[in-house]
Amino acid sequence: MKEIDKLSVAAIRSTAIDMINEAKSGHPGMALGSAPILYALFKDHLISDPFDPKWINRDRFVLSAGHASSLLYTMLHVSSYRISMDDLKKFRTFGSITPGHPEFGHTPGVDSTSGPLGQGIAQAVGMAMAEANLRSNYPNYIDHYTYVLCGDGCLEEGISQEAISYAGKLKLNKLILIYDKNDVTLDGPLSLSDDSDVTQRFLAEHWNVLTVDDGNDVDEISAAIKKAKKSDLPVLIIVKTIIGYGSSVQGTNKAHGSPLSAEDIIKTKQFFNYNYPPFTIPQEVYDNMKENFIERGLKEHSKWLSKIEKVKDGNVLDYKLTFSNDVNYLLPEDFTNFDVNKVEATRKSSNSALNYYANVVNKMIGGSADVEGSVLTKLNNATVFDKNNYGGRIIHFGIREFLMASIANGMLLHSGLRPFVGCFLVFSDYMKSAIRMSAISKLPVIYIFSHDSISVGQDGPTHQPVEQLAMLRSIPNLNVIRPCDAREVYASYKIALKSLDTPTAIITARSESKFKANSSYEGVEKGAYIIAKEESKLDFTIIATGTEVDLALEAKELLKKENIDVRVVSMPSMFNFEKQSDEYKNEILKSPYEKRIFVEMLSSYGLHKYAKHTMCIDHFGDSADVKVLLKEYDYTSQRLANDIKKYIKESK
Amino acid sequence: MKEIDKLSVAAIRSTAIDMINEAKSGHPGMALGSAPILYALFKDHLISDPFDPKWINRDRFVLSAGHASSLLYTMLHVSSYRISMDDLKKFRTFGSITPGHPEFGHTPGVDSTSGPLGQGIAQAVGMAMAEANLRSNYPNYIDHYTYVLCGDGCLEEGISQEAISYAGKLKLNKLILIYDKNDVTLDGPLSLSDDSDVTQRFLAEHWNVLTVDDGNDVDEISAAIKKAKKSDLPVLIIVKTIIGYGSSVQGTNKAHGSPLSAEDIIKTKQFFNYNYPPFTIPQEVYDNMKENFIERGLKEHSKWLSKIEKVKDGNVLDYKLTFSNDVNYLLPEDFTNFDVNKVEATRKSSNSALNYYANVVNKMIGGSADVEGSVLTKLNNATVFDKNNYGGRIIHFGIREFLMASIANGMLLHSGLRPFVGCFLVFSDYMKSAIRMSAISKLPVIYIFSHDSISVGQDGPTHQPVEQLAMLRSIPNLNVIRPCDAREVYASYKIALKSLDTPTAIITARSESKFKANSSYEGVEKGAYIIAKEESKLDFTIIATGTEVDLALEAKELLKKENIDVRVVSMPSMFNFEKQSDEYKNEILKSPYEKRIFVEMLSSYGLHKYAKHTMCIDHFGDSADVKVLLKEYDYTSQRLANDIKKYIKESK
Repeated sequence: MKEIDKLSVAAIRSTAIDMINEAKSGHPGMALGSAPILYALFKDHLISDPFDPKWINRDRFVLSAGHASSLLYTMLHVSSYRISMDDLKKFRTFGSITPGHPEFGHTPGVDSTSGPLGQGIAQAVGMAMAEANLRSNYPNYIDHYTYVLCGDGCLEEGISQEAISYAGKLKLNKLILIYDKNDVTLDGPLSLSDDSDVTQRFLAEHWNVLTVDDGNDVDEISAAIKKAKKSDLPVLIIVKTIIGYGSSVQGTNKAHGSPLSAEDIIKTKQFFNYNYPPFTIPQEVYDNMKENFIERGLKEHSKWLSKIEKVKDGNVLDYKLTFSNDVNYLLPEDFTNFDVNKVEATRKSSNSALNYYANVVNKMIGGSADVEGSVLTKLNNATVFDKNNYGGRIIHFGIREFLMASIANGMLLHSGLRPFVGCFLVFSDYMKSAIRMSAISKLPVIYIFSHDSISVGQDGPTHQPVEQLAMLRSIPNLNVIRPCDAREVYASYKIALKSLDTPTAIITARSESKFKANSSYEGVEKGAYIIAKEESKLDFTIIATGTEVDLALEAKELLKKENIDVRVVSMPSMFNFEKQSDEYKNEILKSPYEKRIFVEMLSSYGLHKYAKHTMCIDHFGDSADVKVLLKEYDYTSQRLANDIKKYIKESK
Repeated sequence: MKEIDKLSVAAIRSTAIDMINEAKSGHPGMALGSAPILYALFKDHLISDPFDPKWINRDRFVLSAGHASSLLYTMLHVSSYRISMDDLKKFRTFGSITPGHPEFGHTPGVDSTSGPLGQGIAQAVGMAMAEANLRSNYPNYIDHYTYVLCGDGCLEEGISQEAISYAGKLKLNKLILIYDKNDVTLDGPLSLSDDSDVTQRFLAEHWNVLTVDDGNDVDEISAAIKKAKKSDLPVLIIVKTIIGYGSSVQGTNKAHGSPLSAEDIIKTKQFFNYNYPPFTIPQEVYDNMKENFIERGLKEHSKWLSKIEKVKDGNVLDYKLTFSNDVNYLLPEDFTNFDVNKVEATRKSSNSALNYYANVVNKMIGGSADVEGSVLTKLNNATVFDKNNYGGRIIHFGIREFLMASIANGMLLHSGLRPFVGCFLVFSDYMKSAIRMSAISKLPVIYIFSHDSISVGQDGPTHQPVEQLAMLRSIPNLNVIRPCDAREVYASYKIALKSLDTPTAIITARSESKFKANSSYEGVEKGAYIIAKEESKLDFTIIATGTEVDLALEAKELLKKENIDVRVVSMPSMFNFEKQSDEYKNEILKSPYEKRIFVEMLSSYGLHKYAKHTMCIDHFGDSADVKVLLKEYDYTSQRLANDIKKYIKESK
């Protein structure tokens, strides 16, 4: 190992622990243990341009073990990304660009928000899929690697299996997963909970596996990466490291998640012969990265630029637009005229709308977790994405919901595609954390959740969503839209596609909905609107969403006969409604609080913000035909009308 | 293969498809494909007593692929469980004991609620762990096998990996997983999404793997199970089957989830030479099960009964009580006296309470997903559960949250242990579906979720819960308790332990709470109570939970100086509060709706049921020290006091 490599790794290690010490918080264990890995990757292999960190054809790097953030920030700093020594000193402080875990869009050079373990691997699969798809369709523009660094924890999480199994199936050979194998987790040695044969596990999923026995040997690591880049399968590089290397707590879980003592910091630096004051890195280290990482990256970037200037590709009029997530320039102003008498399930309208937009937005790519025929996510004029057809737009994710959502995140992190993913609403449970990651990372994933209430029927309580809408609506920055008819469905898709930084969940039903003459695009955009106005006096307001809007309209008719004058508000999106002016909100919710009822065939949890009363299902369902269920639960327009009469009487 | 075996399998297949036909709903594919598996298992191996289906030492059977419920019900029917032919005819109808997916506690002989794929395998790991633990501690009483039947979907789900990896590590050799390998999923051939080498995958996790090439050969299947029972490792038996075997759609995804046509039913039965009217099973089939399954089961049950009559085991005074989930008889009437001036984090009180109860309730067993040192789930006087010490009570689940929750479900399904499991509140996201399964299955799991708000601080938004409390509270039949001091913590544990059919989530904080003189056990039991009464006039009510109760009390003091008289309500459990009388509820929430504020340092979603106003965090957090965050977000008692003054003015 060259002296400059030793010095560079020592500088990175020392600065990373200085940061943690300064913040009095952080994870020195992996920073010390895996510094040589990151250094070898950045110095010898990673192709990126620190002065244009969003260059579309850069190699991607995901730190799946996000707690090693101080290491990543230091690496980016010495590689001349716009992260100053001062930024490093502000590690984990308010408003800094060096937060506790990497945050996409927040820090130059950070390609992914990570921390929740395992998901980084899954996101990287999405990135590698995006790369493969774009490479297939735009070979002159896109051709790069995706690297991930993970730890023991990432591999224990189930999502890692979904990810490696699917990556193997897809033969994503430009995906290189580096495993920082330090055999220690937070609570102690890995052997407390795990004795998997990791090599065999990956071979079973058709990966190539390489092993580096000395995680401190930069040359050995670099040679392994070099070999991995030539593989025709995805590659796992197992690098044996020592957690907290050089510190007095090395090799133990004490090194994992607490700052080293001041004394230990001094001793650790001495161990590396690093004789510089805190937060000091000698110029040779910067020069070294300049001569290697930066020069390589700039050269490749300019080669790429000159190449694409020469090529003529009818598909690529403006490459920045082509490879962005923005599709606003493609969206039609209005959508087709509708047969207002149409009666169909919103899941069917959803498939029409999906195909309508996918025909004009060729960036749309997606599918479902093995429920294509039920959720109706199929694109009509498209082929299946597979190892022999990376250009395909239909994805068969398999029965891997969590992975599916993470792949969508990875594709948007990569940029250039607009993924949509679907499953039954009840199984949004399996992907909750990934949906949250979409929202935190501001990725406009389109989630399509069908079978949206106890009307699922015979499959019974395990398959009938009750609390899932509440779960989704409670996630900040997630736009949950439950449309009531075909027009609201089309509007939902348009809103989802227009969005650049908010994921959207479109909730559809298996039961039929009537198409309403008064439904409107603007109404969905405003979140809630009057879909049936009171005739003359406003006695009561029913707020409803989805299929329950029909029920509300029926109740309005029933009450009309008794001279009770009701307004029906369709509220497809609370998220959009909350953004409206107080004036608009007050106009829509004109009835006093105690004269409003919210009707949804799911949990009432969260609905009392808009209405004192609810007609909901606050218990798990039963296995029976939906018609029987509605009768047994007395979930009818007549019940709604009776309830309203009762509430009017009570409030007098 | 014997004639009687052929006839029996044909009878089971035919009846299973009759049920689906009658219900016009169900999954014939696996019922037809895997009938010989279930038959071989029940006829030759499974030890159980259909007349006492809760016998504690029976073998357990989990149908992880719950959609094959018609097969299971038919198998139980011919095996003389209390499921009549009439019950089979009522498949998937309201109020029947034969719902769409198996439901524990609802149908005799059904050992587990299943359907959400993969979880059955994980539950079975929990059952096998419970068996191993009880066998170790009560060898005269407990010694049985746990069988699971799963399909391709179960193995694609990530949770299966968590389960098989941990089962292998624990050497759970009495766990036998039978894999119905039909290579077809809902959307088409398995090869659309998967090409894993399953044998190698399981070998990597230290399982034995057996293969049965002909899934129609009952003898071959039975021989494999016989071999599996002698293994010193957990065993996977791969049985190659044909989905929808015998029907015109066999071998294709069309067989999976829709009833066969009337014509196809006739042809299918002809294929099996089964010439009986619908819902007709010849007596030989019942006799055959009687001679094999029932006689074996009764013999083993009576052998067990006579054995335990002979043994004298000081630990087992009443075996039914010893092996039930009920621990009410063990709980102390009251808990110790407290130092009312104590200031400590509720996560610390949680550890004290946990140990306090675990000392008297030796059924308590559990741990955390590799965050023992942070969530503080450690039992002081206990050893670690591992392959060399199945009697241990401390479980190191590894970084496998979803598995952890499913194991807890499995232990309670098994009966005899009271599991507690812990992780950071934000990672309840990873286990949502399993928590829901606890609630649906009425299993009193104790969930301990620490680090309960943005006060997590430096780790940043990926680690700061915001919407997780809302997610949990919206689940029916889950008691979410967020205690505000040590006494409320002790009360939470007692309530959780008293519960027989409701899981409890105890939410604890890392920041310190003051111990309140007025906190009370009864208050927690009632869900909400006055922790600081107004002095004379009731101007306003603050509702708070957890650490925010301190903030509320501070605000009360501030307002007192301005002659504003405030009541503070601690509402640790909405679940319990909702069960109180209207009179009690109205007394606690005496202030008018617009003069109440709910204070929680998490999402306001769901709180408007109790208060018009909220002081909450409705956005993702930032990475910074908690003190800085509170200042930046202006989350202080002074702000609360100011808000209240404003609201009082507005409502005048």
